[in-house]
Amino acid sequence: MQIIQTVREMQHWSEDRRLERKTVAFVPTMGFLHEGHLSLVREAKNRGDVVVVSIFVNPMQFNQSSDFDKYPRNEAQDERALKELDTDVLFMPPPAEIYPDGYQSAVEVEQVSQPLCGAFRPGHFRGVATVVAKLFNMVKPHCALFGEKDFQQCVVIKRMVRDLNFDIDIVSLPTVREDDGLAMSSRNARLSAAERETSLCVSRALTAAQELVSGGQTSAAVILQSVQQILTQNAEVRVEYASLCHPETLEEVELISGPTLLAIAVWVGEVRLIDNCVLH
Amino acid sequence: MQIIQTVREMQHWSEDRRLERKTVAFVPTMGFLHEGHLSLVREAKNRGDVVVVSIFVNPMQFNQSSDFDKYPRNEAQDERALKELDTDVLFMPPPAEIYPDGYQSAVEVEQVSQPLCGAFRPGHFRGVATVVAKLFNMVKPHCALFGEKDFQQCVVIKRMVRDLNFDIDIVSLPTVREDDGLAMSSRNARLSAAERETSLCVSRALTAAQELVSGGQTSAAVILQSVQQILTQNAEVRVEYASLCHPETLEEVELISGPTLLAIAVWVGEVRLIDNCVLH
Repeated sequence: MQIIQTVREMQHWSEDRRLERKTVAFVPTMGFLHEGHLSLVREAKNRGDVVVVSIFVNPMQFNQSSDFDKYPRNEAQDERALKELDTDVLFMPPPAEIYPDGYQSAVEVEQVSQPLCGAFRPGHFRGVATVVAKLFNMVKPHCALFGEKDFQQCVVIKRMVRDLNFDIDIVSLPTVREDDGLAMSSRNARLSAAERETSLCVSRALTAAQELVSGGQTSAAVILQSVQQILTQNAEVRVEYASLCHPETLEEVELISGPTLLAIAVWVGEVRLIDNCVLH
Repeated sequence: MQIIQTVREMQHWSEDRRLERKTVAFVPTMGFLHEGHLSLVREAKNRGDVVVVSIFVNPMQFNQSSDFDKYPRNEAQDERALKELDTDVLFMPPPAEIYPDGYQSAVEVEQVSQPLCGAFRPGHFRGVATVVAKLFNMVKPHCALFGEKDFQQCVVIKRMVRDLNFDIDIVSLPTVREDDGLAMSSRNARLSAAERETSLCVSRALTAAQELVSGGQTSAAVILQSVQQILTQNAEVRVEYASLCHPETLEEVELISGPTLLAIAVWVGEVRLIDNCVLH
């Protein structure tokens, strides 16, 4: 596995592979890799002749610098995991390579960045769209893979790719869960044992909502009431949002009449967790 | 000369040329081509193995729809001129191909989009940066050429390319002028004979400013006073701005201590004209 740290070298490497008519599959990450990330890398191996994984904790997408500082990191372990999966390139640019002095540009995806996480993390998806556009221009992939745990992020990136005409296939893969249902997330490492247990209410709420829909319930209000009830059983959980919306436009729905996104964000102690599923 | 109208076909064409290891040079235009554009196409022939010229009057960069409607067009004449120069591809996408239903993304270059034309045409450079980013992803060029008549546009695009890591060389070429000094512009077609004569005050003001600097004048205030005097000799001229600023940051300067941009925008009757030179 080759480790690349500069934009120039990354672009040359990818350009050379493209000229050899190899397809480049790309998995952008913020590191502290778990099984969710690794499932993306495995699928990238299936889809591309060569695989590039990036690790870059992007300051532009953190609306609170304390959250950025606390974001978990473990480069040695990440490197080992990626080597084991036969990753071709680990791209790990330092921050000054991504945001040099005088930097002043941004990519904005307007409507789909507004609701859900966008409403509580101002500037977050502007930061995400910008760094992903930059990474696409650095890595020049044929396809890029993202996890559906960050569902709104997938929607924003798919919209950006279509709107700005990036010639890249965007592949999103299902959330990987622990045996007990907790969605894998780098942030889970910050949960205490008790908080870890408390956090299960989120996946329980998703399951309960799916059961209601399977049973014929079509009222968003009724479903959300049940979700809220499950989430607030434990006083340590603070619900940021629980929303039913269209899985492409992210507009809120009142009546379930087709595949509908149930998206949830909660705080368990000091840790913010998100999860979602598409009800059908 | 091949005429391409869809994004998909344009991307495939360029990807095929790149795989043949040919360099693609690109000249984006809004059509109604004059000698200024043609000088860019000729230089593109020198720099690329193949040359793509686009014609797209971009609604997103017009802050007034009346200005968009009145923008001069002559596709038959443009086609002839480009054929004569052995252009390989004329890319002429219809508006719905560029901004389909649901479109909602934008590229913003913050500081350098603010002053000069940016202060008088809100959203203009957001529209320019966005369409150029899109065209770059459609045409996938190795280099792209722009005229320095739109100096601020060149600055915005160079900054965007650096900030968003487009792997594209941006080449800017000097303004082409009529024999009497008037900067060539598609908008000149809208001037009456009398207005055409009046418009010469702009290039005269630039020349006078250069003479002051050559003679040792370093005070921006003194130079701008002389510029204003020349521009306002004719009552039909309304000065929008005349500004001395740093040619990269576009920050205003008070003292000339190195190459300095003199940028001018005036209205002559119903027609807005811009011009500039770098004083040294």
